[in-house]
Amino acid sequence: MTDALLADVAKLDAADPLAGFRDRFHLRDGLIYLDGNSLGALPRSTARRLARVVTEEWGEGLIMSWLGADWSRAPQRIGDKIARLLGAARGEIIATDSTSVNIFKALTAALSLRPGRSKLLSEAGNFPTDLYMMQGVEAFLGGRVRAVAAEPDAVLEALDHDVAALLLTQVHYKSGRIRDMADVTRKAHAAGALVIWDLSHSAGAIPVDLNGAHADFAIGCGYKFLNGGPGAPAYLFAAARHQTATPVLSGWFGHARPFAFEEVYEPARGIERFLCGTPPVLGLAALEAGVELMLEADMAELRRKSLALGDLFMERMEPLCARYGFTLVSEREPALRGSQVAYAHPKGYQIVQALKACDVIADFRAPDVLRFGLTPLYLRYRDIVETVERLEKVCATKAWARGEYQVRAAVT
Amino acid sequence: MTDALLADVAKLDAADPLAGFRDRFHLRDGLIYLDGNSLGALPRSTARRLARVVTEEWGEGLIMSWLGADWSRAPQRIGDKIARLLGAARGEIIATDSTSVNIFKALTAALSLRPGRSKLLSEAGNFPTDLYMMQGVEAFLGGRVRAVAAEPDAVLEALDHDVAALLLTQVHYKSGRIRDMADVTRKAHAAGALVIWDLSHSAGAIPVDLNGAHADFAIGCGYKFLNGGPGAPAYLFAAARHQTATPVLSGWFGHARPFAFEEVYEPARGIERFLCGTPPVLGLAALEAGVELMLEADMAELRRKSLALGDLFMERMEPLCARYGFTLVSEREPALRGSQVAYAHPKGYQIVQALKACDVIADFRAPDVLRFGLTPLYLRYRDIVETVERLEKVCATKAWARGEYQVRAAVT
Repeated sequence: MTDALLADVAKLDAADPLAGFRDRFHLRDGLIYLDGNSLGALPRSTARRLARVVTEEWGEGLIMSWLGADWSRAPQRIGDKIARLLGAARGEIIATDSTSVNIFKALTAALSLRPGRSKLLSEAGNFPTDLYMMQGVEAFLGGRVRAVAAEPDAVLEALDHDVAALLLTQVHYKSGRIRDMADVTRKAHAAGALVIWDLSHSAGAIPVDLNGAHADFAIGCGYKFLNGGPGAPAYLFAAARHQTATPVLSGWFGHARPFAFEEVYEPARGIERFLCGTPPVLGLAALEAGVELMLEADMAELRRKSLALGDLFMERMEPLCARYGFTLVSEREPALRGSQVAYAHPKGYQIVQALKACDVIADFRAPDVLRFGLTPLYLRYRDIVETVERLEKVCATKAWARGEYQVRAAVT
Repeated sequence: MTDALLADVAKLDAADPLAGFRDRFHLRDGLIYLDGNSLGALPRSTARRLARVVTEEWGEGLIMSWLGADWSRAPQRIGDKIARLLGAARGEIIATDSTSVNIFKALTAALSLRPGRSKLLSEAGNFPTDLYMMQGVEAFLGGRVRAVAAEPDAVLEALDHDVAALLLTQVHYKSGRIRDMADVTRKAHAAGALVIWDLSHSAGAIPVDLNGAHADFAIGCGYKFLNGGPGAPAYLFAAARHQTATPVLSGWFGHARPFAFEEVYEPARGIERFLCGTPPVLGLAALEAGVELMLEADMAELRRKSLALGDLFMERMEPLCARYGFTLVSEREPALRGSQVAYAHPKGYQIVQALKACDVIADFRAPDVLRFGLTPLYLRYRDIVETVERLEKVCATKAWARGEYQVRAAVT
């Protein structure tokens, strides 16, 4: 890094109103972590929170903590906190189960609200589990329902009067491209379809306004930008007007009176009906700590910094694109760009491995995409510049063609 | 306690080969915990394990821990450990999701293996979520499948040639009565039905031999006798011969190649196909610590002590039954008795509250059942005698009719 560049970057970091958040995370010195959109970093508060839940609430409180420590309402309580990030109201989100299981709940709820319609629509190239869950419903219902994956540019045209639900990811997992939630929802509603938004790469990454867009259902994962920990519970949004749908996964925690131990299922009146089994208390505790930390930050500020980090990344990458054959595959246009930048390169896999060997963690997505997640809570402007410098060395020395130890020697 | 009784009980505790396990748990002095069949106590190793998973594996290892710390195979690895408790083979059990979600997987797998059959059969009075999940499938399939709850004594007669699956709990949650797994399975198979065993109150409580009984599917929860923590992941057993069933909850972790990000679902070849979303790593870590501790104990020894604790409990309760109107509702006969004893009493709810006020934690199940869970890993014979003594004081002083502080004053 030249002195001038160093000074410029130092100025950016010094002026960053979010700079203070970095110390709230456990991050090893020297590491540049650009994979927070796969697994967010560990908030320091989480370790303390979990220790307390385990030793005090479980160890000392035992069974009494279901009420005493309010475990029993954790899915709703944390859902209400996530709602503040997503433009939803209290009582419209629960946190529990996995994203995939919540997709199933949303798909089947939408089918029950659109009887007579037989298509579940999505786009080719969507995150696989979204497509797989649709295919599972199709297989189970033996021909009564079809799972259709239209080409991305043709998905809105495919909205005919047989579509019960359109399942789309707001920020594409690979390209980071943003779908216009309000516009797509309006068009789907015009065709009488409901929309299920996958917010896995949106929540905590870009401003989201579910009710502003009249969204029907949404799901998303807790372990990316929400920093909820590996395999964190996911969340499900059901607009208040849709909380009449009959749950297919009708487990006891979704019952109107779970502890009356009645024999006939009667769904709870609110969002609770979309609960199923006993909530995963330990995972929820970690998720809650991550969400609370995110709520301390101003979302407009987060978005501004995310775009600025992305701009800086693309600016620094320009010479490498020309010299080493990287092609930008994420969007330049801010309105279309999620909190990541992605490049294609024929040696993408090897380059990501070589970067890892010199302490830059990025992500590879088949067949040739290098994905760099931008997490404004714990990334600094200097991390971006440093990343591109290390990447340049990896390319200049062809370190990506060697084993891990040689990479380190070549680059550092 | 008379001196003679004290000496007798001390002898039993001194001779107990499992006595050493008590110190492996976090248990507050003075507390007698008879609700380990609702939520097992905290193993000391769990707190250490979780701290390591959080700080080292997540905090330091970040995304690399999916391979580096073997998170990705945790459901199978822990499933294999649970298999050793349940008479299953390696590759027949996974640990993930909730019991309710796993019931749905087993019910729908059984339906796919018995095409043309339309009944899901269970017994009235089964644990509610078992019945509810059946009812959810019925509602979803709109009349093609019926959920039937026969009377407990008539359930085997209800096994006609239209039953696809029989879902029964091996140890009844309220009465603790044991169903003969081998006998019931044989009769169900004779009618061409598959059997799904709910082992929530069996695993870690009584010897279970799934393959010895030719069981088809089984599910069970991790937070009771397995001491896996609040809302711990549950487990699913699918006999090797049934691992061809097409999963309905076809999430990406059940795909043959999850990280190839293909667009068409193709189930993995083994038990992995019954995985769905991203596994709950933190919950699995706690469950693994609980299961490992259980595996250190000899199951025959556990069972022997469990029955001895129950015998002692019933013996000490005899005079109270006559004097204060308790009625034994659990089984006396060892072959029929799970690891709990239960009594009915018209003031059952108040008595359980009064016991709690004097540091004895039991469980109330509507309408009038007091349930005492016997967990041989951390209960002593003296705890049983002490429990009945405190219960006697609660009854003799009618402390159950008063508020918490008066109870304590009356009894201690």
